[in-house]
Amino acid sequence: MSFAQHHIASLMGRMKLDALLFWSLENIRYLCGFTGSDGAFILTAQERIFLSDSRYEEQAKAEIQEATFEKYKKKIEGVARCLKAMKVRRLGFEASALTYESYERLKERLPRITLVSLTDQLTNLRIRKGTEEIGRIRQAIQIASDSFLDALPRLKSGAREKTVGDFLEIRMKRRGAESPGFPTIVASGPRGALPHGKPTDKAVERKDLVVVDFGARFQGYHSDETKTLVLGKPDSRQKEIYDLVRRAQDRAMKAIRPGASVRRIDAAARDVISRAGYGKFFGHGTGHGIGLAVHEPPTISPRGSGVVEAGMVFSVEPGIYLPGWGGVRLEDLVLVTEQGCEVLTYLSKDLKNNIV
Amino acid sequence: MSFAQHHIASLMGRMKLDALLFWSLENIRYLCGFTGSDGAFILTAQERIFLSDSRYEEQAKAEIQEATFEKYKKKIEGVARCLKAMKVRRLGFEASALTYESYERLKERLPRITLVSLTDQLTNLRIRKGTEEIGRIRQAIQIASDSFLDALPRLKSGAREKTVGDFLEIRMKRRGAESPGFPTIVASGPRGALPHGKPTDKAVERKDLVVVDFGARFQGYHSDETKTLVLGKPDSRQKEIYDLVRRAQDRAMKAIRPGASVRRIDAAARDVISRAGYGKFFGHGTGHGIGLAVHEPPTISPRGSGVVEAGMVFSVEPGIYLPGWGGVRLEDLVLVTEQGCEVLTYLSKDLKNNIV
Repeated sequence: MSFAQHHIASLMGRMKLDALLFWSLENIRYLCGFTGSDGAFILTAQERIFLSDSRYEEQAKAEIQEATFEKYKKKIEGVARCLKAMKVRRLGFEASALTYESYERLKERLPRITLVSLTDQLTNLRIRKGTEEIGRIRQAIQIASDSFLDALPRLKSGAREKTVGDFLEIRMKRRGAESPGFPTIVASGPRGALPHGKPTDKAVERKDLVVVDFGARFQGYHSDETKTLVLGKPDSRQKEIYDLVRRAQDRAMKAIRPGASVRRIDAAARDVISRAGYGKFFGHGTGHGIGLAVHEPPTISPRGSGVVEAGMVFSVEPGIYLPGWGGVRLEDLVLVTEQGCEVLTYLSKDLKNNIV
Repeated sequence: MSFAQHHIASLMGRMKLDALLFWSLENIRYLCGFTGSDGAFILTAQERIFLSDSRYEEQAKAEIQEATFEKYKKKIEGVARCLKAMKVRRLGFEASALTYESYERLKERLPRITLVSLTDQLTNLRIRKGTEEIGRIRQAIQIASDSFLDALPRLKSGAREKTVGDFLEIRMKRRGAESPGFPTIVASGPRGALPHGKPTDKAVERKDLVVVDFGARFQGYHSDETKTLVLGKPDSRQKEIYDLVRRAQDRAMKAIRPGASVRRIDAAARDVISRAGYGKFFGHGTGHGIGLAVHEPPTISPRGSGVVEAGMVFSVEPGIYLPGWGGVRLEDLVLVTEQGCEVLTYLSKDLKNNIV
């Protein structure tokens, strides 16, 4: 029995549920294999039913594993009909995926079924990655890394951020990605102070720091990595900030092992930056889990909770963002192992290898 | 006062709301101009407040119009704090955008505020397009059409669906699209019977029908268009089905004028197909509105409600899908005018212009 199956069986027992209703495409894909973009999945101790409309009928029948297919015309009505026919009494539902509107409409149609909202109880369903999942993440990383190297020669003084970003994304698709995992960030000079700066028509200039945050999606799984490049010889300030972020990243990685709390890992990176006086310029968490979603548990931040375990995959990505000056972020993906962690991304984050 | 402003003022008066909470990125963008990917928007008779986290602070300050910015660390907590400080008593919220989980967490923090779920009342907020919006849709159409023409020479026997689709998407970005509006569909031969067939490594073959459904996103606005091409001389079955769909599309377009019911427009297309005996192979609605979202009201289908009005933009896209044989779908975008409708998409849907 896999971690996820065990998780579900234990949850249903503990909360006395006779069925679970899944609504998020990631969990649906995870649990029954459907890769399309609309549907619902119902699970009981005896049955596994995937529901969708006629657009996805052929695809669903080809893709779903150990589940039967039911077709609906209208989603809420179809799901309600199915639950009634199954004589479900206590239904747990994915409260982070159903909108309030869908909940209200479902409840209206199911006056005799107790709807139990599941939030934290499902958060960690996909948190431990299996061998196949890790393989897909590795493939996504390889595609993204190769594409980054394809794009690197184009990153020079005069090139537009958008042109570089687009080229990188095109290469990812050429190299077999389903799509970029998220919109690529290329933020140069002062724009590097925007942690989520979309590429613009701004030309990259000599002496700029350029933050490039990129990732590919392969068979549903994502990579995510950030390099910060310097165009030309770095000045002392650039060196100082870069080295600080690099050290923060390194400390966080050294803190990772099964049983380490997510706050402890975050603090390991944050302390380095805070002690140097830049604490308030590191405005986000140190990392996030990744898999079928680009952002998923665990959350490595001062407000996160719990400990990390072997099999989790997450990013380690401290950054310093100075308004008007620019930013440095370094991001790698790690896999928690029995002994510590393995860094899955392999492009160098050392300053000397990031001067172009 | 624009249609949307009037809509909101009337809704707040009718339902005795002293504030509205918006959560969907499309409505947030529409109402205050923010183009990033996380935030919330609160609107009262006196105030307009956009809230987001530090990642989007600089961007929000540059983008938002007639609104003040408030920063939060955690979204629900930040929004709740703001609503309390504003002394809101009856809050309408976007029930189709908040998850049930967010609703529960917000409610818990706001025991003294009455939360009023808004569903149908907000559905039509963006339904009438202004001149600027129509201009952006036209630009998206032009980018997509030019890119389709760039890709057309590559669509020949032996070419892989995926290669053609990728090339089309690359061209859209080169030609100024923010991104493709949705994953491009290239479905050839029997795969054309999958209305949402993702491009695969299948090679397009001589005599195949190839359904290509594509659109660009420009300044937030989308285009959406479907061509069905025949590789080589069409056989009599292909001609029959193609002509049927073309006639169905034509009938629907002729039925469009202010005051025409969406069901009537759908029926105009559906009747042509049903009378020829193919009714059960046209499994989806005739059209959908488009704008900041790829799919938005109005819904032109047998289960839709209401009438169309001048300023609405929607697709007209009947199709026939025969399992094992393939499919034909023809899709154009129309703008409802005082007299009838203007077809915004301009690539020919006549069979003679779609033989390659």
